[in-house]
Amino acid sequence: MKPETPLTQYIKSKKRLVDGYLKQILSRRDGTPKLLQETMRYSALSGGKRLRPILALAAYQAVGGRGKIILPAACALELLHAFSLVHDDLPCMDDDDLRRGKPTLHKVYGPGLAVLAGDALHNLAFQLLAVTGNLQVLQEVASAIGAKGMIGGQVADLQAEGRKVSLEEVEYIHQHKTAALIRASVRVGGILGQASASQLRALTVYGENVGLAFQVTDDILNLEGKEKELGKKIGSDKLKKKATYPKAVGIRKSKRMATELTQTAKGAIRIFPNFGRLTQIADLLLQRIK
Amino acid sequence: MKPETPLTQYIKSKKRLVDGYLKQILSRRDGTPKLLQETMRYSALSGGKRLRPILALAAYQAVGGRGKIILPAACALELLHAFSLVHDDLPCMDDDDLRRGKPTLHKVYGPGLAVLAGDALHNLAFQLLAVTGNLQVLQEVASAIGAKGMIGGQVADLQAEGRKVSLEEVEYIHQHKTAALIRASVRVGGILGQASASQLRALTVYGENVGLAFQVTDDILNLEGKEKELGKKIGSDKLKKKATYPKAVGIRKSKRMATELTQTAKGAIRIFPNFGRLTQIADLLLQRIK
Repeated sequence: MKPETPLTQYIKSKKRLVDGYLKQILSRRDGTPKLLQETMRYSALSGGKRLRPILALAAYQAVGGRGKIILPAACALELLHAFSLVHDDLPCMDDDDLRRGKPTLHKVYGPGLAVLAGDALHNLAFQLLAVTGNLQVLQEVASAIGAKGMIGGQVADLQAEGRKVSLEEVEYIHQHKTAALIRASVRVGGILGQASASQLRALTVYGENVGLAFQVTDDILNLEGKEKELGKKIGSDKLKKKATYPKAVGIRKSKRMATELTQTAKGAIRIFPNFGRLTQIADLLLQRIK
Repeated sequence: MKPETPLTQYIKSKKRLVDGYLKQILSRRDGTPKLLQETMRYSALSGGKRLRPILALAAYQAVGGRGKIILPAACALELLHAFSLVHDDLPCMDDDDLRRGKPTLHKVYGPGLAVLAGDALHNLAFQLLAVTGNLQVLQEVASAIGAKGMIGGQVADLQAEGRKVSLEEVEYIHQHKTAALIRASVRVGGILGQASASQLRALTVYGENVGLAFQVTDDILNLEGKEKELGKKIGSDKLKKKATYPKAVGIRKSKRMATELTQTAKGAIRIFPNFGRLTQIADLLLQRIK
């Protein structure tokens, strides 16, 4: 076992906070059909790093945010991530059998319920964002995951499958499919924490670069990682002829890019003394391929 | 051809307003992948009665609402309806080939893109609701279509397929799957038009009953209607063993229920002198089975 550091303790405590809140709202007896709630819990409470909410919480604290208004927003970001995975795993999309080491939702409940569970998670996220009372935050997130954001990226991903792709195409897909929501997560923390304009600009650059670095390392792990850690089949991207960085530029260059993106992310927030936790998180994500 | 009445003229002009706005927002060059925008246009601009936006606009005017803030909200309601149809028609759900007299979206673009187009419409609706700047409206709609509303009703519908169902079950399904969004449409018009508490109560009863009456008549039309008017196969519910009113209580009793529900709807708004248009719309919907 790895020794506990202040950073791992921090991540653990934030994870506990997020998991507790998610568990609570997904246990409410509010008239949701039992089976639907079960599918939503299966998707949202099956582990996961909770990267997006942790980034939102860390950004919020970095700019001096106080109080708990960030928690529903942070959990909304995780639900949106869960929604995207459930739909992405469907037989008519990526057709994945394994997610976080467990059978994917449609494998257990069938694809019809998986479509509806994804829809319900998507919708619940907006209900949580509305709890913040902050329309700017809601618009920020809606734009990041919408037709010109995450969902648009998934369409491009679907279209690229099986084809030879350029670096530009891979970048477009990953910027939209993955980085847009991560960027929004960091910005939501900043906005709700009442970041100054210059803080928010720095957080934006950080979020964009960490978001992209995260996807590059994920692509690399899909080739070189361990199935137990990844929670899905090693080499599944290659098998499905997905557009990935290693496919476009090779593994060595992909590693260099991940390092450079992480450097840029850290550089953007260097001038803010309270942003140390965000720097550590960026390093931790890169560590996965070291 | 039927002669034009003030009511049909009214409906035509509102439809034109809604269609114009939808066309405009679905033509924006905002970075949405071309193919995705094409699927969204295919779904949202392929005819349809525009019942939900028209009810919202009529309720808004009935309570004295002025200005154009209702338009994005009204169009959001139509997009949510479109989203629900696209996902509902999927092979893993109702597996419908025909919608509004045209091939369903997944028949043309494949089920993967249909999932994503539905997601994008769902998301765009929230972006339009945010334009109103009114969080109460956003929460109202989110709740109506969420896990304890429309999506919950779809899960119950999926579970009921092929089984013998009681009237209570059919009522639950239709109240959630159909009436919840129609009720919300009327209420959104009221809320944005700054209805008084008693006006909003009356609109709520009207919306609930018109919403249910609409689904009962739809069930009847699926048995007795003309394919050209219905835009889908006659008898398709029976073929798919769907839970419908005629299946639960017979066609004669279903017709009596539709009439009674319409009476209740009209009765609730009788005391308000400006609510005449809503009364006419309720009658018009019932006329379909006369």
